[in-house]
Amino acid sequence: MRILGVDPGLTRLGVGVVDNPRARDVVLVSVTVLTTPTDWEPPQRLHTLQQGVAALLDEFSPDRVVIERVFAQHNVRTVMGTAQASGLVMALAHERGIPVSHRTPSEVKAAVTGYGGAKKPQVQAMVKTILGLDEIPKPADAADALALAITEAWRGGQIATPTASGSETPAQRAWREAIRATGQNRLKG
Amino acid sequence: MRILGVDPGLTRLGVGVVDNPRARDVVLVSVTVLTTPTDWEPPQRLHTLQQGVAALLDEFSPDRVVIERVFAQHNVRTVMGTAQASGLVMALAHERGIPVSHRTPSEVKAAVTGYGGAKKPQVQAMVKTILGLDEIPKPADAADALALAITEAWRGGQIATPTASGSETPAQRAWREAIRATGQNRLKG
Repeated sequence: MRILGVDPGLTRLGVGVVDNPRARDVVLVSVTVLTTPTDWEPPQRLHTLQQGVAALLDEFSPDRVVIERVFAQHNVRTVMGTAQASGLVMALAHERGIPVSHRTPSEVKAAVTGYGGAKKPQVQAMVKTILGLDEIPKPADAADALALAITEAWRGGQIATPTASGSETPAQRAWREAIRATGQNRLKG
Repeated sequence: MRILGVDPGLTRLGVGVVDNPRARDVVLVSVTVLTTPTDWEPPQRLHTLQQGVAALLDEFSPDRVVIERVFAQHNVRTVMGTAQASGLVMALAHERGIPVSHRTPSEVKAAVTGYGGAKKPQVQAMVKTILGLDEIPKPADAADALALAITEAWRGGQIATPTASGSETPAQRAWREAIRATGQNRLKG
């Protein structure tokens, strides 16, 4: 299963591709950030991003695309551009028969760090650890796109079963141990 | 000058095409509403609209595209879909080298009826009158798309000069006469 994650935006659109051969194994395939100048008009920016995303979809042929879910309560101007970029990605994926999922920022934080209220640097540090990278992918949109892809790998489709404790986060390990402890207590009771 | 107006939306996307041979002359070329089922997922809806708009742009080869400007203060879910549909149209137009303008609902009302606070039925009735149609185009999105195209014809590029009083709205005629009266008063004073 190959997953392409998209952190949508007009100025910077992060794209992270991971392979998920089984269970919690995730391997970095590619990460890139498409950018468009802020002084370009939206039609030119959107068309440029469309061409860039189409090229990446065709190059990596993902089995699934996951896009960060956009909320409208933030800056209105930014949100409109983000929604437009997100819409383009959805249409391109559907054109190629690739299913599309959405994940909220807190779902991503919870999946990657074990805590939905985690800060961005914690998420980025976990992306580096999970994928065994030498450094945190820059800019932030690159790491965010990879975090989305990892989340989809672990939570999309079937429920992921933690097999290799080495790929768990500390929070996930603590959670699994807490559940095991509860089970043991029940057996005892 | 041929203008294609778009009232964007996921469920109904209105497209109105007018020719504007000179000054305030506007002639109906085509009007249609693209629809997608509400129970389809957004990627399928967006891709379907994208194909439909692309086909219309290729069929009518407009010199300019005008899209209703979307505001985020309304229903969040609707606005996201509207922004996404609008983004697709922008990218398609840019791909074909067609300039894109945006007009707000109040600009359209002011241009077509002479009053920025006009109600929708007044705008629709004026679209019928201006284009010399037998009836008001239905649904509302069709009339709205034509009103956008008329607005762009009259306000885009150079300042439109009212030459034939027959193509003026009653409000526009009253306004022109009021200005003339003011001028005469000044000359008298």
